[in-house]
Amino acid sequence: MKLHLLNPNTTESMTLLMAGAASRVASPGTEIIPTTAKIGFPYISSRVEAEIIASDVFETIAEHHTQVDAVIISAFGDPGLIGARQLFDIPVIGVAEAAMLTACSLGQRFSIVTFSDRLTEWFCDGVRRASLEQRFTGIRLPREDFQSIETVQEELGETLVKLVEEAVLIDKADVAILAGGPLAGLAAKVSERLPIPVVDPVPAAVVLAEGLVRLRPGIARAGGFARPPAKDTFGLPDKLARRIEHTD
Amino acid sequence: MKLHLLNPNTTESMTLLMAGAASRVASPGTEIIPTTAKIGFPYISSRVEAEIIASDVFETIAEHHTQVDAVIISAFGDPGLIGARQLFDIPVIGVAEAAMLTACSLGQRFSIVTFSDRLTEWFCDGVRRASLEQRFTGIRLPREDFQSIETVQEELGETLVKLVEEAVLIDKADVAILAGGPLAGLAAKVSERLPIPVVDPVPAAVVLAEGLVRLRPGIARAGGFARPPAKDTFGLPDKLARRIEHTD
Amino acid sequence: MKLHLLNPNTTESMTLLMAGAASRVASPGTEIIPTTAKIGFPYISSRVEAEIIASDVFETIAEHHTQVDAVIISAFGDPGLIGARQLFDIPVIGVAEAAMLTACSLGQRFSIVTFSDRLTEWFCDGVRRASLEQRFTGIRLPREDFQSIETVQEELGETLVKLVEEAVLIDKADVAILAGGPLAGLAAKVSERLPIPVVDPVPAAVVLAEGLVRLRPGIARAGGFARPPAKDTFGLPDKLARRIEHTD
Amino acid sequence: MKLHLLNPNTTESMTLLMAGAASRVASPGTEIIPTTAKIGFPYISSRVEAEIIASDVFETIAEHHTQVDAVIISAFGDPGLIGARQLFDIPVIGVAEAAMLTACSLGQRFSIVTFSDRLTEWFCDGVRRASLEQRFTGIRLPREDFQSIETVQEELGETLVKLVEEAVLIDKADVAILAGGPLAGLAAKVSERLPIPVVDPVPAAVVLAEGLVRLRPGIARAGGFARPPAKDTFGLPDKLARRIEHTD
Amino acid sequence: MKLHLLNPNTTESMTLLMAGAASRVASPGTEIIPTTAKIGFPYISSRVEAEIIASDVFETIAEHHTQVDAVIISAFGDPGLIGARQLFDIPVIGVAEAAMLTACSLGQRFSIVTFSDRLTEWFCDGVRRASLEQRFTGIRLPREDFQSIETVQEELGETLVKLVEEAVLIDKADVAILAGGPLAGLAAKVSERLPIPVVDPVPAAVVLAEGLVRLRPGIARAGGFARPPAKDTFGLPDKLARRIEHTD
Amino acid sequence: MKLHLLNPNTTESMTLLMAGAASRVASPGTEIIPTTAKIGFPYISSRVEAEIIASDVFETIAEHHTQVDAVIISAFGDPGLIGARQLFDIPVIGVAEAAMLTACSLGQRFSIVTFSDRLTEWFCDGVRRASLEQRFTGIRLPREDFQSIETVQEELGETLVKLVEEAVLIDKADVAILAGGPLAGLAAKVSERLPIPVVDPVPAAVVLAEGLVRLRPGIARAGGFARPPAKDTFGLPDKLARRIEHTD
Repeated sequence: MKLHLLNPNTTESMTLLMAGAASRVASPGTEIIPTTAKIGFPYISSRVEAEIIASDVFETIAEHHTQVDAVIISAFGDPGLIGARQLFDIPVIGVAEAAMLTACSLGQRFSIVTFSDRLTEWFCDGVRRASLEQRFTGIRLPREDFQSIETVQEELGETLVKLVEEAVLIDKADVAILAGGPLAGLAAKVSERLPIPVVDPVPAAVVLAEGLVRLRPGIARAGGFARPPAKDTFGLPDKLARRIEHTD
Repeated sequence: MKLHLLNPNTTESMTLLMAGAASRVASPGTEIIPTTAKIGFPYISSRVEAEIIASDVFETIAEHHTQVDAVIISAFGDPGLIGARQLFDIPVIGVAEAAMLTACSLGQRFSIVTFSDRLTEWFCDGVRRASLEQRFTGIRLPREDFQSIETVQEELGETLVKLVEEAVLIDKADVAILAGGPLAGLAAKVSERLPIPVVDPVPAAVVLAEGLVRLRPGIARAGGFARPPAKDTFGLPDKLARRIEHTD
Repeated sequence: MKLHLLNPNTTESMTLLMAGAASRVASPGTEIIPTTAKIGFPYISSRVEAEIIASDVFETIAEHHTQVDAVIISAFGDPGLIGARQLFDIPVIGVAEAAMLTACSLGQRFSIVTFSDRLTEWFCDGVRRASLEQRFTGIRLPREDFQSIETVQEELGETLVKLVEEAVLIDKADVAILAGGPLAGLAAKVSERLPIPVVDPVPAAVVLAEGLVRLRPGIARAGGFARPPAKDTFGLPDKLARRIEHTD
Repeated sequence: MKLHLLNPNTTESMTLLMAGAASRVASPGTEIIPTTAKIGFPYISSRVEAEIIASDVFETIAEHHTQVDAVIISAFGDPGLIGARQLFDIPVIGVAEAAMLTACSLGQRFSIVTFSDRLTEWFCDGVRRASLEQRFTGIRLPREDFQSIETVQEELGETLVKLVEEAVLIDKADVAILAGGPLAGLAAKVSERLPIPVVDPVPAAVVLAEGLVRLRPGIARAGGFARPPAKDTFGLPDKLARRIEHTD
Repeated sequence: MKLHLLNPNTTESMTLLMAGAASRVASPGTEIIPTTAKIGFPYISSRVEAEIIASDVFETIAEHHTQVDAVIISAFGDPGLIGARQLFDIPVIGVAEAAMLTACSLGQRFSIVTFSDRLTEWFCDGVRRASLEQRFTGIRLPREDFQSIETVQEELGETLVKLVEEAVLIDKADVAILAGGPLAGLAAKVSERLPIPVVDPVPAAVVLAEGLVRLRPGIARAGGFARPPAKDTFGLPDKLARRIEHTD
Repeated sequence: MKLHLLNPNTTESMTLLMAGAASRVASPGTEIIPTTAKIGFPYISSRVEAEIIASDVFETIAEHHTQVDAVIISAFGDPGLIGARQLFDIPVIGVAEAAMLTACSLGQRFSIVTFSDRLTEWFCDGVRRASLEQRFTGIRLPREDFQSIETVQEELGETLVKLVEEAVLIDKADVAILAGGPLAGLAAKVSERLPIPVVDPVPAAVVLAEGLVRLRPGIARAGGFARPPAKDTFGLPDKLARRIEHTD
């Protein structure tokens, strides 16, 4: 099985981090095919940036979808998730949605623990899109700053453990999600010290993707996720245009 | 006052229709500045198409925002509304949101009446984004087809009147929204025959835009709609890149 | 255009304050026609007082509605709003509802900032009636007292600015509403110092009223806001009785 | 124990009907003290009428509250319920609220079955005020007309039984409420023929009132139902004015 | 009238406490018939314990239901409430549900005040099952420990009074429920000192049970609470098996 | 990896059907260990039956949990799910919850399609417990009867396909769940003929269970799913008693 791990950020080191976290949990026969965005931002952290990058997410999927079994959009706000799910016939998984659904199988209420308050609006949009507000206890954030997203795991590791404890005691969370690409892989290192189960979004997305491929639920040919009928386009990237025009 | 009426579709005739509907309700001192998308689709009708076009919506606003007082995104699904509101300092109005908020000042529950079932998912996303599900009685659609979006007003006019009547009798709607760019201006022609108040999205957006300009509510410098801090970009359209890099 | 600005309180100085705030934002051709309640309370501040005064609100509208284009009920709990909207054919605007709908076009979540905890229950009823709980971050109140409602703007001005800041930081509000008749006009004086857009209810109601008059959405002849059929009455004020008996 | 059964309508025969239904379920030591409105409407059937009559409801309670143990507002929309609960120290019960809470102790979802579509908006407001939308399956109405509210029980009896059956089969109701003053007492006559438990609002209010008197839960001296502090009034009915001015 | 007061815990002294609280509020002609669980736990305090004990609750009701008029399940999490209501033809009342519905007739929002954080999840399940989240301000808990459930009333009495005050001031509660079997009877002792009405679950259940018996709402023969048709069973307790097999 | 597939019904042939469906989707290294209930019912189909059987579910898990990696409760109402998740340290999966979460990764709204209206209340409880009402379009049921649960797949196969089509067209479902043990394995046979993705609960639970085992999220030692502290028990089945007394 081949899983396209699509990093919509332009930072290669983050792709490596995510691919490592993905590989550690992947089944023996699963190949992780990571890509890094060529255009956009080093690290998407707001809704407007996520909206800007959505079209490029579609083009990147359009380039790979015939050679893979499923695609994982690997940024916690799941940019382009709904549109990609509509446009392509393979399963499309967002790491935020995968993490939230996984958390819902481990307890009643989950907390999102992350490292920067710039991300909160964008992350909360994902909770609302999933209609999971009633199972969400809110976002817990450090009160301190960090130097760089490449070292944020080391810098804030202890702090994040404390935030999970606050999520349990104050917010009554049953499960924690460690959210944000730069935290990929951290959960495995700290889970034994945490009082509640913890979900790492990229690995959660990998096992969900594998599961959906094996379940073969079938393709949407009707309803809100059916591929739209062929339509003219102007000025769109090549592969995306052909996918929309049904000339691919 | 200058209002940028941004048609995110590439069909010029639709821009003319919308601009006409806008001008009929604009105040004496208000100038409507219409633009038509250069890239994208003749008529956006699904969520994926709306996600694709969002980046171009931002670029188009970036080209005009210093010369206008407010911008109206004139497609009923409000593509790019949240991002644009975050990125720019002038009021950004979506025709769907404006129509729904206007409807909420005329009755408790509103119905959306439109002409094609391809649009329903996209339109419902807007209701959910606005958290107005409790005031929404659903979408009413014709059971018959039509020839072209340029003549759909004439073709389906009588049918749409009947759908409003069904919305009252069956769905218990207090107000109807005639939704979709191709229906711009229809409300004024049929409102006397309708049993409930009816909202035309483009005019509703124009009076809301004028109102917000006159109210001078101030700019978001904090919270979920503050402009993000300067950030590097790669490969984005020029004016948009500069807006994001704070070099505009 | 003539707008009836109905102050359901008996305090004339408050009517002047509201009328001033209304006039500053009204369009050139708009005439504000203020009235002050003859019976009731100097300043309505609870639900029971609002329920007591509703009938007089209807009688006052019944006296003026044929000479005006719309009526604004100018007390933040919107006493009599639903009934008046049902009984009369002109647009009826409540300042609280207008402020909340305006806030919803400026951000996702709004805070209500006011000056006395006696008002909170009544104000929250308005949020619930509008089904806007999901967009409401709560009410922020001063911890200190004030001398009189006539000087409360001056006494608590600085405090209210701080409360808006708390609404952003703690409650994650995107927009603030400065609520309560005695605060009319304050928003314009402090908006530049505030980190988020701020809505002044009376001016918001004025631009909404003007907008609805210009949109000509039509009259409810069916649904939940249609005028009830003629009915006998006993002992009601004259003009109201005639409106209900359809003998006006 | 004395229960004030307040009919806010002016029709004496309806008071008799309600008092009969109340007496049949009252405990041996309970005295029902019925009153009929002197001003207002023969039969309140809309929200505006309910808002008009609220002040007179308060005045009538003010005249009796020191001689009774609890008061029942006996019109299904519960006019003045919230305000009266705030203003007086004895338990104030609304027949609609009492019926809905009773229904919630008999099943998960209740239907309201009534006789005229003029009542639906008003009745639905009560469901919303109680935040019981999730337990409400909607209103079932006859498709046929009736001659008079004094004979509606006989005229529509069979039809109402069929409506309850539809509420079970189509709406998945577990319990039915036979709503509207003119139906008082009908439930007892037809309950054996009905497939689900049925609630008669006036008797439900009587047993709830008796229960609250016996429970002695204490008086609200804080929170949203505390009596407001003394306040000046102008032109209000005598006993109500004194209650508000704390001179009673 | 005979009311079966079923204590699903094995602690006899708690049954006595509950039966005393029940008797003090019962009508002259009402006989309270208390039972104590033979199997299970001294004091149920979690969801898993409540799920374990449900079957024994049904068996105990099956042993008594033909000799009583109604049954009260007397543990605040209402173990077995839904199933028992389905299986038996007499009214089945849960003390938590009864307390919450009673609270809803005294104010808009209620707080649950209890003595141990082990109980919170279980108690919150009851709020969710009743779909009363919007009327619930949360649970208030002591920060200090106690020696035994038999003396917890005396040990924490003062603390619980303070918690009610916090529920009003901080959570904006209108009514408080003193929850948990070991607190039965406490409300009557402290209600005069409390700023808001207070509900004692066992007495609230008694007056609700008496009321339902007198109302004679009829039996569910359809819908979600109809007795299931006869079915084979294996290895169930005798009386329960016969009830399910329709051989009782 | 070993997965305990716990059939809480007493029908062995159903266990075989489920185990077959489980095995077809399990990974090469996964062993399915099926058990069939010794006590209870041939086929649980109501809430009261599910409540009765919960204690036996716990005892069965207590007998196996040290030799398996996860347990799947294989009846669509998930009897005992919450309690088991609290009591044991291995992942506990319910087939209904697993199917719903899987459906949420394939579309916005799911329909439950099943074969008997006796099941609907029980199944809807699961949707409510998961707080997924907003993503649920309701249950679709055949209008015709069937002979036996052992042949229901063959008898109603065509009908169920049509019900899925109705779920799309009428209820606007994006995904369908074929629910109820006797339908295990049907989805794979009909998915190609269905217009939307379809989820088979047992296979969905298997891939979710495997995923959770591989993710190693850690154990709840706090929050609402922590194992309760040791407690005395009376008369409980042996292994369950020891698990609760912490003597296992």
